This record gives sequence, structure tokens and C-alpha cells, in this order.
Amino acid sequence: MSARITLALDGMGGDHGPSVVVPAALAFLSRRDDVSLILVGDESALESALEGADTDLRKRIRIHHASQVVNMDELPSQALRGKKDSSMRVAINLVKQGEAQACVSAGNTGALMATSRFVLKTLPGIDRPAIICPIPARGGHTHMLDLGASADCTAEHLLQFAVMGSAVATAVHDIERPKVGLLNIGEEEIKGTETVRDASAMLSDSSLNYIGYVEGNDIFGGGVDVVVCEGFVGNVSLKTMEGVAKMIGAYIKEEFNRNAFTRLLALVAMPVLRALRRRTDPRRYNGASLVGLQGIVIKSHGGADMVAFENAIHIAALEVKEDVPARISRLLEDEDKERQGV
Amino acid sequence: MSARITLALDGMGGDHGPSVVVPAALAFLSRRDDVSLILVGDESALESALEGADTDLRKRIRIHHASQVVNMDELPSQALRGKKDSSMRVAINLVKQGEAQACVSAGNTGALMATSRFVLKTLPGIDRPAIICPIPARGGHTHMLDLGASADCTAEHLLQFAVMGSAVATAVHDIERPKVGLLNIGEEEIKGTETVRDASAMLSDSSLNYIGYVEGNDIFGGGVDVVVCEGFVGNVSLKTMEGVAKMIGAYIKEEFNRNAFTRLLALVAMPVLRALRRRTDPRRYNGASLVGLQGIVIKSHGGADMVAFENAIHIAALEVKEDVPARISRLLEDEDKERQGV
Repeated sequence: MSARITLALDGMGGDHGPSVVVPAALAFLSRRDDVSLILVGDESALESALEGADTDLRKRIRIHHASQVVNMDELPSQALRGKKDSSMRVAINLVKQGEAQACVSAGNTGALMATSRFVLKTLPGIDRPAIICPIPARGGHTHMLDLGASADCTAEHLLQFAVMGSAVATAVHDIERPKVGLLNIGEEEIKGTETVRDASAMLSDSSLNYIGYVEGNDIFGGGVDVVVCEGFVGNVSLKTMEGVAKMIGAYIKEEFNRNAFTRLLALVAMPVLRALRRRTDPRRYNGASLVGLQGIVIKSHGGADMVAFENAIHIAALEVKEDVPARISRLLEDEDKERQGV
Repeated sequence: MSARITLALDGMGGDHGPSVVVPAALAFLSRRDDVSLILVGDESALESALEGADTDLRKRIRIHHASQVVNMDELPSQALRGKKDSSMRVAINLVKQGEAQACVSAGNTGALMATSRFVLKTLPGIDRPAIICPIPARGGHTHMLDLGASADCTAEHLLQFAVMGSAVATAVHDIERPKVGLLNIGEEEIKGTETVRDASAMLSDSSLNYIGYVEGNDIFGGGVDVVVCEGFVGNVSLKTMEGVAKMIGAYIKEEFNRNAFTRLLALVAMPVLRALRRRTDPRRYNGASLVGLQGIVIKSHGGADMVAFENAIHIAALEVKEDVPARISRLLEDEDKERQGV
């Protein structure tokens, strides 16, 4: 069976580079026979990471050399101007040129966003790309955006985010009319900023399934499929989640480590503790999408391990299969018709 | 021993009114013989909730009748204009008149903030009051503000929040030079909004112990004592914490309820699970301070039970003892001197 999906992986991005990307790529290929991968980066580093790989899997991997690497703390503007042969830039170029249908990078978020926007451009009708990610919630997931691509958004931007979020929720989690909520600091009409109130009015008039304001705790309640907010707020909320989950994890560890009895308990309770860890494992949620671009770009966490990076590749393949950019364009057209009263 | 501290409690506020406020008041008095309380609200409702109370404790409670109640969903402007004899308003008046040194209310946050600001006024040098609360963190607490009093802040407002937060951290947790962090979406200089960047420059020039930008996950890391942000972001972050903690709590319950074996485990592990619940119990953190006012006002969660409301009374007494408003004024003066290069 020939591969129908080709993905470009930034082989040098993230804290670990090829030592994580290559094993994740091989693991992913062993599960999916319809995908082939292009590893972008330093040829010799990638070749040596591939040494000993299964020959059948190896056949579906092509190395594309790139001489530069974007550092994790590099300014986006510097990366854009000075790193035209970076593994990140070349991987995005491959999407632009149609050689790959999506790319995945664990590199510096700001540089990835700036470069993707510069190379791929936004979809017609979209002013700004956004970062979206599924968040675990009661009974499933909530898709939240923007998680940090841009601060200081207008009401129109928030409406565009709602359209993009709806398209992703439908594509990735097969939700027909995703319930869209606008993140605010109170449920009453009077609260929030003027921008949020204006966006709420626009969403009420839209063809989307808008359910009104939601608050920070509602993200996890299962009553909303898409949570829309500007990037500063979304990023703080996302990082807050990480921080709380980590702290509670540390509490659990401490309490089970308190004395000989509790340590024995931890052994006996291992299946339960493992199940808990699995459910709160951030690696299962690794892979945020940069949406609103003329192409699919997935951002993996910089510190992602093999399991986490493989999940990001999985999301890329899924978005290719569902053609998320085309879905966004269609929803935008519906929205335009709605506004023109057609 | 005569009472040295007098606190006014809004007896009708919150979801439960006197049925929570009165038992919490009695429990608090049984632990503290230096405090007396004024219960404000409907006289007969409060009298009947006090029936059967210990006579010694009862001596330290005075009822102050108020004929109206601010509803939980009432608009702040309506409460301000139309409810001049509400239990909330009268309790704040008692602080203004010097009959009480602080007040505690579980009533509607918007109305409490608007009324407090109108009656008590802000401190000289403070443009806007803020809501501050201790957040559990590794090794202690982080004081975070603003948690929802005002959105759309200027850099100058954020600086004032930092001053207020430092004063509270010193007063409440005895931290001499609290480490102040400014909430942002990246640690690099280039990220964040213009307001945040301007505030960072002002904080760097201030006499405060400013450590730079922090992100949402750093709130819990123990490396920062005061986290400063505008109210929209702070409120979303706070509600996100509540949501995540609740969801993980539900996960733990589900996993221990999965089958007969795990239910048996839950019984055996009860001491550990109890300790965990105690450490993540939101009631222990109930009681947010409205700071920046010429007086002490503590907001309890609307749904607070007796344990939670008692904690809010405890915070009020502590802020009276430490005279938080005077501490803020002193820090502001230091700041003025610093700016004038004295």
C-alpha cells in the first residue's frame, strides 16, 4: 500500500532534537502504513539517529538536509531573517511546495508562528493565525484558542477564532455543531471588556452554535466544545492548568511517600495511580495546531519525549485526513453568507 | 479580656445567608477571645439563627438591623443606588464610621466592590482597588492580584497592584521583601502586550523586589511571592485552577470507584486520600481581600460553607491586626520617594 499522507518533521527542533524526533517517527510509522515522513535537518545527525532502524520503516523516511537550527530562545524576527535554511523553515517550505501535507516542529513557538505565517500566509478571511489545543474535560475534550499566538485581539479576531475552533472540533472530534463559548470573567452581560462584549454580539448573530459566556472553570465542565479567548488569556490559562496538575501530582507523590505504611499503600494502589497518571498525562495532549494558515503546522512541546512527539505527528496526520484548512474556509464562507443574509 | 478587634459580618450575603454566617461567627469567637462581631442583616432571621448559642460567645455578638439584601445576580449599579439599607452596604458603613475595623461579605462580588469603593474610597495614590488572594504553591503561598476587580489596566495600575500585593504578602505571610513577578506569556523580553512591557520597566525602576516575568505555571512553583496581572487574566487563571482541581478530584474518585478491589483500596488508603483532600481543599483558601481601599473588606465565596466562611473571618482579623491599608500607604510613600530620587 503506497503512502497517501506525507508529513515533514523538523528533526532538530525542541530540547532533544533527533534523539526524540527520530524514534517518535519510527514508532508512528510502525502503527500507520499510509504515511511517509520527511525528516528535515542535519543529514549526518539524522542518519546516525536512524541507524539500526527497521528497513521497511526506513523506506518510508526521506532525509531532507537543512544546515541551520533555530534556537529555543531565538527572536522570531531573527529566525525569520537569519535562518533561511533552518530545519524549521525548510519543513514549512515543504508544505508550501506541496511536498508534504503538514509539518510538525517542537521548536520555538514564536519563530514557528512567524515563519509559518510568512511562508504559508493566512487563509482568505483570516487576519491572524491562532494556536488551538484539545484540553481534557469531563466526558471528552474542549478545544481552546488562542493559546498564545497573539495578544490584543479585536472582536472580529475572536469571531474568526470561533470559526476556526468549530472547524477543528468537527474535524478532530467529529462534533457536528460544536458548542462555542466565549471566555469571560462573569456570566452576566455587564462583565468583561468591551471587546468581549462586542465579540459576543457578533457570535450571537453568527451561524455558529454560540452558547454565550463561559468562565475559566467551565473549560473542564464538558458543557462547551470550543472556548474562544485572546492569546494572552489563553496562554495564562493553559500554563495555569499545567501548573496545577503538576502541583497536585507532587502532592499525591508526597502523601504516598510519607511513611512505610503509605509507601506500601502506593505499591498496592499502583494500578489506580497508573490509571490516574495516564488520564492526566500531558503527553497525551501534546500537539497544538497553528490554525488559520494555508497549510497544516503542528507545534509540539519543546520538552516533548518520544510518546508526546508521536502524539503530535498523529494530530498532523489527522488534520491532513480531515483537511482542516478547507473546513475552515468552508465555515468562513457560510459565515459570510449569513452576514449578507443570503 | 475585652475585645480589641471588632468585625462587621454581612449576615445575609452569599448563597446561604445566616445559616452559614452565624455558625461560622460562633465557631470563630470560640477560638478567639480578642474579637467581637457585629452581625448585619434582618434582625429576626439573625436572632433565630443565634438561638441556643453559648451565652458567653453571644455576649460578643451585636446584631445591627438592615432591611435589604443585595441579590447574587444584582447589577452593582442597582445595588449601589437602590439598596442603601442592604446588609452589605450597612456592614461597609460600619467600617467607614469606625465601629468595625473590617467587614466580611459572601455577597455578589461586583456589588461589594462597587459599594466598598463608593463608601470607603481608595487610598491616596491608588487609582483602582484590586482583589487579592493567597494561592497554594510549592512550599507556601503566592499572592495573586488582580483577580477580577478591573479589566483593561494600565502599566501604572499594575505597578500599584505590585505595591499592594507586596504589602499584603508581608502582612499576611511575614515575607520581608516579597519577590514580585509580572504575569506574561513568555519569559523573553519581546513577548506580551505593550502594557505589560511598560509595567515591567516601571517595576524594574521601583523599590520593590521585582524578579521579572513569570508564566501561568510559575504561580505554583514557589519562586515568586506576588504575581501581578490585570483582572481579566487573573480571574480566568483563578477559575482555571478551580476547574482543574475539581476535575482531578473527580478523576481520583472515579478511579477508586472502578471496581470492588479499587473501592477496598480507597478504604485502606483513606488517611492518604483525606490528607490530599485537606491540602487541595478550596475552603482553606476562602477569603479574598479587596485591597487599595481606606478600610478592610474581605470577600468570601458565595457558596462558602461554615468552615470556609470562618476562614474569611480569620483573614479579616489578621488584616486588622497587621493594618494592611497603612502598610500599603507606607509602601506607596517609599515608592514616591524612590521615584523622586530622595
